[in-house]
Amino acid sequence: MTKSEHRNAPAAEGADAMQSILINGVAAAGGISALDRGLHFGDGLFETIACLHHRPRFLSLHLERLARGCGMLGFSPPAMQLLREEIEGVAAAQERSIVKLIVTRGEATVRGYAVSGREQATRVVIRYPWPVENPVLRQQGVTVRMAAMRLGENPALAGLKHCNRLEQILARSEPQAAAFAESLMLSRSGKLVSGTMTNVFLVDGPPHSPRLRTPAVELCGVAGVMRRVVLREAARAGIAASECALLPADLAAATEVFLTNARVGVWPVGRLEERTLTPGPVTRRMQSLLQPLLEEPADA
Amino acid sequence: MTKSEHRNAPAAEGADAMQSILINGVAAAGGISALDRGLHFGDGLFETIACLHHRPRFLSLHLERLARGCGMLGFSPPAMQLLREEIEGVAAAQERSIVKLIVTRGEATVRGYAVSGREQATRVVIRYPWPVENPVLRQQGVTVRMAAMRLGENPALAGLKHCNRLEQILARSEPQAAAFAESLMLSRSGKLVSGTMTNVFLVDGPPHSPRLRTPAVELCGVAGVMRRVVLREAARAGIAASECALLPADLAAATEVFLTNARVGVWPVGRLEERTLTPGPVTRRMQSLLQPLLEEPADA
Repeated sequence: MTKSEHRNAPAAEGADAMQSILINGVAAAGGISALDRGLHFGDGLFETIACLHHRPRFLSLHLERLARGCGMLGFSPPAMQLLREEIEGVAAAQERSIVKLIVTRGEATVRGYAVSGREQATRVVIRYPWPVENPVLRQQGVTVRMAAMRLGENPALAGLKHCNRLEQILARSEPQAAAFAESLMLSRSGKLVSGTMTNVFLVDGPPHSPRLRTPAVELCGVAGVMRRVVLREAARAGIAASECALLPADLAAATEVFLTNARVGVWPVGRLEERTLTPGPVTRRMQSLLQPLLEEPADA
Repeated sequence: MTKSEHRNAPAAEGADAMQSILINGVAAAGGISALDRGLHFGDGLFETIACLHHRPRFLSLHLERLARGCGMLGFSPPAMQLLREEIEGVAAAQERSIVKLIVTRGEATVRGYAVSGREQATRVVIRYPWPVENPVLRQQGVTVRMAAMRLGENPALAGLKHCNRLEQILARSEPQAAAFAESLMLSRSGKLVSGTMTNVFLVDGPPHSPRLRTPAVELCGVAGVMRRVVLREAARAGIAASECALLPADLAAATEVFLTNARVGVWPVGRLEERTLTPGPVTRRMQSLLQPLLEEPADA
């Protein structure tokens, strides 16, 4: 492991005194029921929400995705206004924080996989401290590797930020992973999908009319909130941006590569395996376009 | 839904006064930590153990599979002797029960997918009442349908009874599923895999030398404990039995089909979609061979 790899590895983000937990609206509640289907089967969804100036960022987009996910998994989410109030309440106490919302189908009313329809969704809101980040990452770019672990394909789960995340955990646990800021993953059928915790964008095309592309998430992967914001802002700025099937060859041919998630916004890729990349004009443009949205605690 | 479908549907198995829960060895503990990785990511494994005459059945096989699964997910399981004592203790209070063991990687020590290596596995032991079962199922066979939901493929997770079970839940939630005892699932690439909660065996070949086959679980599916017992007992009895790639055409061509799991032992399939099957000699033979092992609270 080189010094620069160390520098680019994300800092460990431990639980500390700034942490706060609400379980179904109650602080310091006893814990989650041992019968919760989230624990038994990963039968739930989550959102990781960046909070700035005491307010959650892009909260409406997060809640919209959550509601769509609940619909696809076939259960009723908690009232959106309730979730909004709890998240805003927890975020208010700190200038900056990360709030994770977990919504499960709830406590099991029958044993086994079957759903009775009488389940009541469980909601968990956890506030974590905003992690210390090296400003160099945003400037010079992060180091990225290719994970050996591939993502299984299932259109019924694709796009959702559901709680079945063993594949991401195993990718993140691969021997070299800790020395890199992110690991990119391919699908079982060999397509580029995403990082373990980020979406990926490729830039190619001639300098006067560059093209921005990100893998479609129709068979696997998560439809990230920041991915959606980037696609929207690129379109507004007249930059051609699309979701499509992408192969490792497209990644190799890209002149710029960047990663996105709700916390980091846009991370240029500065090194991809053995290849050095220089954050280019399209990446910088997207960073500029997003900057006011990221600094302003905008709701959508 | 016909009357016979109703009759074959498994009875709802509700939580009741016979239920008992141990969390890390403590009864009536406050609940599971909201930071447990089992809740966040389904980062754990489980075993469903049939208990008879106050004792867990095939406990060594269950614990062996659990330990192998922890190894594949990269965390240390709790001490096996401790798990054994807790399961035996919980089972002792009832003549018959189902004990579910969940072992997660434990409470998160860092935010996100990364593992610090400092996690301590969480163990949950839950005793459920033995479900009421119609004896006709074992005799005349169960009704089975094909699920529309397919199983994503990932060799790193195949065979494990891990806690990422959204695919099984969605299969079990399909509109027709509740009217059938089980739904059979294909893999993304079109191979027969298993039921949502059972393994499947096909019988074919000439009557004087029948052949028993079950789908390999190298890309998806669970390597069930009863599946292992059936393969072992068939081999001991001189019945050709193998694990291999099987297609829907093999299922259609099978003269007998049966399902297995730790609770039901062997369930003959009496109807598969529109096709009626008669439980045949090989199914009956396997039921007879297993009978003493199922009635005797044998450990292995």
